[in-house]
Amino acid sequence: MKTLSLKEVSTIAKNVLKKHGFSEECAAVIAKTMTAGERDGCASHGIYRLLGCIHTLKAGKVIPDATPEIRDVAPAIVAVDAKGGFSQPAFEKGFPVLCDKAKSQGIAALAINNCVHFSALWVEIEMLTAQGLVAIACNPSHAWVTPHGGKKPLLGTNPIAFGWPRAGKDPYVFDFATSAIARGEIELHKRHGTPLQPGWAVDAQGEATTDPQQALDGAMLTFGGHKGSALSTMIELLAGPLIGDLTSPESMQHDNHAGASPYHGELIIAFSPEKFLGDGVAAHMARAEDFFAHFEEDNVRMPSQRRFTARKKSLQQGVEISDDLYKEIMALLE
Amino acid sequence: MKTLSLKEVSTIAKNVLKKHGFSEECAAVIAKTMTAGERDGCASHGIYRLLGCIHTLKAGKVIPDATPEIRDVAPAIVAVDAKGGFSQPAFEKGFPVLCDKAKSQGIAALAINNCVHFSALWVEIEMLTAQGLVAIACNPSHAWVTPHGGKKPLLGTNPIAFGWPRAGKDPYVFDFATSAIARGEIELHKRHGTPLQPGWAVDAQGEATTDPQQALDGAMLTFGGHKGSALSTMIELLAGPLIGDLTSPESMQHDNHAGASPYHGELIIAFSPEKFLGDGVAAHMARAEDFFAHFEEDNVRMPSQRRFTARKKSLQQGVEISDDLYKEIMALLE
Repeated sequence: MKTLSLKEVSTIAKNVLKKHGFSEECAAVIAKTMTAGERDGCASHGIYRLLGCIHTLKAGKVIPDATPEIRDVAPAIVAVDAKGGFSQPAFEKGFPVLCDKAKSQGIAALAINNCVHFSALWVEIEMLTAQGLVAIACNPSHAWVTPHGGKKPLLGTNPIAFGWPRAGKDPYVFDFATSAIARGEIELHKRHGTPLQPGWAVDAQGEATTDPQQALDGAMLTFGGHKGSALSTMIELLAGPLIGDLTSPESMQHDNHAGASPYHGELIIAFSPEKFLGDGVAAHMARAEDFFAHFEEDNVRMPSQRRFTARKKSLQQGVEISDDLYKEIMALLE
Repeated sequence: MKTLSLKEVSTIAKNVLKKHGFSEECAAVIAKTMTAGERDGCASHGIYRLLGCIHTLKAGKVIPDATPEIRDVAPAIVAVDAKGGFSQPAFEKGFPVLCDKAKSQGIAALAINNCVHFSALWVEIEMLTAQGLVAIACNPSHAWVTPHGGKKPLLGTNPIAFGWPRAGKDPYVFDFATSAIARGEIELHKRHGTPLQPGWAVDAQGEATTDPQQALDGAMLTFGGHKGSALSTMIELLAGPLIGDLTSPESMQHDNHAGASPYHGELIIAFSPEKFLGDGVAAHMARAEDFFAHFEEDNVRMPSQRRFTARKKSLQQGVEISDDLYKEIMALLE
């Protein structure tokens, strides 16, 4: 293992991206999200993603120097057209406007369109909670998941994330895929020749399977049966047609077997507790803290606790990257 | 069984409520939601609920002639104080303002406060989809459900509902509790002496149980493990402290073992496809139809299909009520 400081992680990510033609601004914000992934112990959203970025670029599926274009859609809606670039620069551009709109209107939405997407949503959610806002974000992906009772893959892994600001504490944040399991987990089981857990997937005939190859030929399932399936469908609609962007089947068609990062939209909704609560804001946010205190008394682990613990450690000690991954990334700089 | 027309159902409900002191207006809107429940084959949200209404009234836990008070909170937020009455009259009052705000701002929220709540959310969701709006509604309830990894009941059954308008068709609507199962289902198993399904509940020590009494002494579980638990927590926060209203533990404390309907708030969010999509609205709503067409090709049942089928039948043939329930309700008129 190789130990790197977070600054070194960020510099490596920026240099790789810039070398391959990503603009300075774009490289900086993508490096920021990858560094956040490494920092929080989420290696799958860390600099490992550089490999996917460069693959997506070489497949001609992302525009490295796209300049996002912002559009004031309505008093409570802002949209940013990513122009075929990655989602992060578009989010950065829309973020201050979303904050302003939420703070003046009470609730507001940011629609990111025409973006190539691989970013973890919690990075964006935490930027909003840091502004004292409550936030929800979601997006479709590629059609790998079948709805409850179906056999054809129609839904994406469709993540949803939520954040709630907590004064003087880490925010309450969750971020989960609505698929029963990550796509990568199925591929890992295939590589290791190990069976899947029941409830993860169906084969091409729609029958339950624990065989990784049959699952890849069939479809993954959502978490939580018909309820998770309904939620995933909601995400397709909200972060797809409602914002004028692709559903997961359309994104997959766009990919045309290139194996690139999905190309679609993202919806972020921000709520201003100040606007909702006026003079009562401090008292009611304190009541939320009473609610969280019950969780602590019952020894319930908060959704992002593992990430915040990893963060404390990484900020002091840096992060460890496997030698193989380090070499692979360094090769991208040659 | 006794067959009643929907008009008869509505008249019975109104008469019972008025006889017990509910105002004309309040009785009418509560009767409307109960009739919708019977019509759609959801007996648990039908006139059976009259028994609970009158119990709640006699326990002193609802104000039968409350006049909801509307407040313009922010350009995209309207709040209605139900003043201790049932939620339905407050929703009716806020509904046109929510529609106007969503249609002018793009996205808007309706906060209902200080209401006694037993209404199914899909009734409200369908009023919004009938206006061409996309909508989400959610509310806490009583603390009967433990978060993932916990043993104490801290969460409500916390329903969430979503609706998407479909031109010339029934809307796409789902409405589900985030608990693994309805509270009433556990009570039914207790009465019948049958075991619960695994995954529904834990005992007072936080250990999995299939014993109904141990479950009632312990806590129900959410659907979907840690993901369902996170979602339920989000609902507590959004439809609780964010709108200045009670969480499920606070609602339960307010009840103080009266066994009345929960007293808390409700949050409804409406999105205007016209505002989001402008000139593109028809084209993008048509893309949503393409997405739904895949579901039909794959023989996937839509979440509310059973309700819409029951509705067609009820509108022609009326509904059947058990003789026992009919007698019990008639007794409320004596």
